[in-house]
Amino acid sequence: MKPVDLATASPEITAVIDDIKASRNVDDVNNFWKYLANEPRMLAHTWNSLKAIMGPGALDPLTKELIYVAISITNNCDYCMASHTAAARAKGATDAQINELFAVVGLANMTNRLANAYRVPVDPQFRPNDEPVQRSGSDR
Amino acid sequence: MKPVDLATASPEITAVIDDIKASRNVDDVNNFWKYLANEPRMLAHTWNSLKAIMGPGALDPLTKELIYVAISITNNCDYCMASHTAAARAKGATDAQINELFAVVGLANMTNRLANAYRVPVDPQFRPNDEPVQRSGSDR
Amino acid sequence: MKPVDLATASPEITAVIDDIKASRNVDDVNNFWKYLANEPRMLAHTWNSLKAIMGPGALDPLTKELIYVAISITNNCDYCMASHTAAARAKGATDAQINELFAVVGLANMTNRLANAYRVPVDPQFRPNDEPVQRSGSDR
Amino acid sequence: MKPVDLATASPEITAVIDDIKASRNVDDVNNFWKYLANEPRMLAHTWNSLKAIMGPGALDPLTKELIYVAISITNNCDYCMASHTAAARAKGATDAQINELFAVVGLANMTNRLANAYRVPVDPQFRPNDEPVQRSGSDR
Amino acid sequence: MKPVDLATASPEITAVIDDIKASRNVDDVNNFWKYLANEPRMLAHTWNSLKAIMGPGALDPLTKELIYVAISITNNCDYCMASHTAAARAKGATDAQINELFAVVGLANMTNRLANAYRVPVDPQFRPNDEPVQRSGSDR
Amino acid sequence: MKPVDLATASPEITAVIDDIKASRNVDDVNNFWKYLANEPRMLAHTWNSLKAIMGPGALDPLTKELIYVAISITNNCDYCMASHTAAARAKGATDAQINELFAVVGLANMTNRLANAYRVPVDPQFRPNDEPVQRSGSDR
Repeated sequence: MKPVDLATASPEITAVIDDIKASRNVDDVNNFWKYLANEPRMLAHTWNSLKAIMGPGALDPLTKELIYVAISITNNCDYCMASHTAAARAKGATDAQINELFAVVGLANMTNRLANAYRVPVDPQFRPNDEPVQRSGSDR
Repeated sequence: MKPVDLATASPEITAVIDDIKASRNVDDVNNFWKYLANEPRMLAHTWNSLKAIMGPGALDPLTKELIYVAISITNNCDYCMASHTAAARAKGATDAQINELFAVVGLANMTNRLANAYRVPVDPQFRPNDEPVQRSGSDR
Repeated sequence: MKPVDLATASPEITAVIDDIKASRNVDDVNNFWKYLANEPRMLAHTWNSLKAIMGPGALDPLTKELIYVAISITNNCDYCMASHTAAARAKGATDAQINELFAVVGLANMTNRLANAYRVPVDPQFRPNDEPVQRSGSDR
Repeated sequence: MKPVDLATASPEITAVIDDIKASRNVDDVNNFWKYLANEPRMLAHTWNSLKAIMGPGALDPLTKELIYVAISITNNCDYCMASHTAAARAKGATDAQINELFAVVGLANMTNRLANAYRVPVDPQFRPNDEPVQRSGSDR
Repeated sequence: MKPVDLATASPEITAVIDDIKASRNVDDVNNFWKYLANEPRMLAHTWNSLKAIMGPGALDPLTKELIYVAISITNNCDYCMASHTAAARAKGATDAQINELFAVVGLANMTNRLANAYRVPVDPQFRPNDEPVQRSGSDR
Repeated sequence: MKPVDLATASPEITAVIDDIKASRNVDDVNNFWKYLANEPRMLAHTWNSLKAIMGPGALDPLTKELIYVAISITNNCDYCMASHTAAARAKGATDAQINELFAVVGLANMTNRLANAYRVPVDPQFRPNDEPVQRSGSDR
């Protein structure tokens, strides 16, 4: 699939692209949006939800970019690592923070598998509203 | 594999468990450590690295717990979701923050696949020190 | 590992390669088979099962190619995305269908993690033959 | 996180829930939506995009449900497997189709890893607009 | 999907089940095969390939069971962890070996993500037949 | 992130690098360590744990390298596949063993998803110390 030529794109696409440019105060959008414009419904849907969630909210924008980078590394999405690391740096992330983030990502992927491997039962205090914990009994 | 009985555990194990209790100011450790004690080298290794990385550093401890939760959801590790969500709440995470975190996790997993699907080339500004970007040519 | 030189390959390998060529009515096989020929048992096994399952059956062949593409994107297998997207196009997939497929893949990866994050209990009507649903109790 | 009590939910939530009920012609929504209502922005975003993409379009609705099931199996999301298998059956999927779907999912997950393992170069005909293929050279 | 009742199964299914029983010298097969019998082509295909690959070969059977367990943990497949850990024990695996295996699985999942995160270029000596390494240039 | 220049690195980093060189009897370390040196705590942590676990132990070193390769393929980590395949060859792995390993990885990824798809209940004999198996009831 090729990127959409924004100069000749439909009004539906242009409206989203213009909103991205205005919201981010940039003259051009990055490649992700030019490719995603091949599916105008997902272009609008993705932009609208990212605009709503990734801005200021319950969590600060830098924290959310770091979470995005962590997931992108875990999923091995090279484009996403590059774009969200750049976004994190633009929002003030330092080298020390990026390196510490990478350390957390490594450790979480390790302990996730150790918890799987040992089939560790969830401690009752971690889910105080749950019924009594039963080992086994799982059908899966 | 069964959890190790800490009352009769080796000095090597007991030293780590005692350090966890002292560092966290708790009387007992959660199940993860009792199972991991079956491999005392990994018990020590995991605790020492978590102690070093998850405490105060370049990133604040709550941010790191939220990153841990995000990865645990992406990897579908139920134990890890429960324990690190509890840890995040203990460090002050609100319901609004947890819900927003879940939203970021959902969106990142979506856009990771959209970027894969369209094979979006990395924009040069995201990796300013890289050589010129070449589409194609990849053998993978 | 290098691709096997089919001109000098063993009769065991040649028999499979010839069947692929005859079944697909092509003069040469694509790279996947040349590499997989390094393990002749898996070459035969993989070809025989793909031949049985991916042809006409309960589902039409195009639907099955689209499912293959969806999984390949989710797993980030670049070779598989390329080869199965080409196969889907050869079986009639349009750009509009490919773009809609990508949208479904994005959304499914998003809602998969939202369902994980909230630990949503399965509604009884989704598994009418199951015993009553119990929240909690899970040991994992 | 607990499900939202829809009887006392905000107008923002109620509007989405009512649209789900009306669109699906049901009296109640399944658990996913009751939990997702904890984050009303994602509730609206997820519903609006699923409504737009999963209905009739370039691909028929049953095909899209099957793709959803395939991804949910690959990601091991139990809730999603249950809900989208039920949806596929409601749209006419037979046991034979479900079983064949499972076979495709198994095979795709196998060949995805075989292609990774052998680092199979993409055949030029699979990406006719790409520049010449280069083996190696990849830094990843 | 329910397990197939083997007492009334088709000759196609019975032939495979009988071969499993004879090969393993058991009176009954485990649940996996009873469910997979819903798709007789995959039942035959899966059994034939496992029979060919998992027996004595270039690698010894215990090593291959341990590899199976490692992948099942990484993919979080509870059934597969249980069945292949039992198979590994039946082939002589000790607790010390299982615990060390879990340690390797944890570490590999950690360093996989650290290598991703830093986009570490492959050292030329690891792929001596490749062309010169180029950093960047990747379009993904 | 760029690799650390080891000629001017801190004593903390140099001590680890020197230990890697001495343990492996090499003049230089591979790229992974030069990048990981950006986070000296993880450099030390990762090396110390790999040194402890990957050497002679309950499992022989070649077996552990093969497990590492299997996980790296499953996670699609190209660097890790290259470095650990090279390490496995240095420890004596033959082409026949590597090819058989790839076959096991393919099959395990297939049967992992088939077991997920059919929600196969764990056979009681696979977990003899567990309570009676219950189908259903799972909330996930």
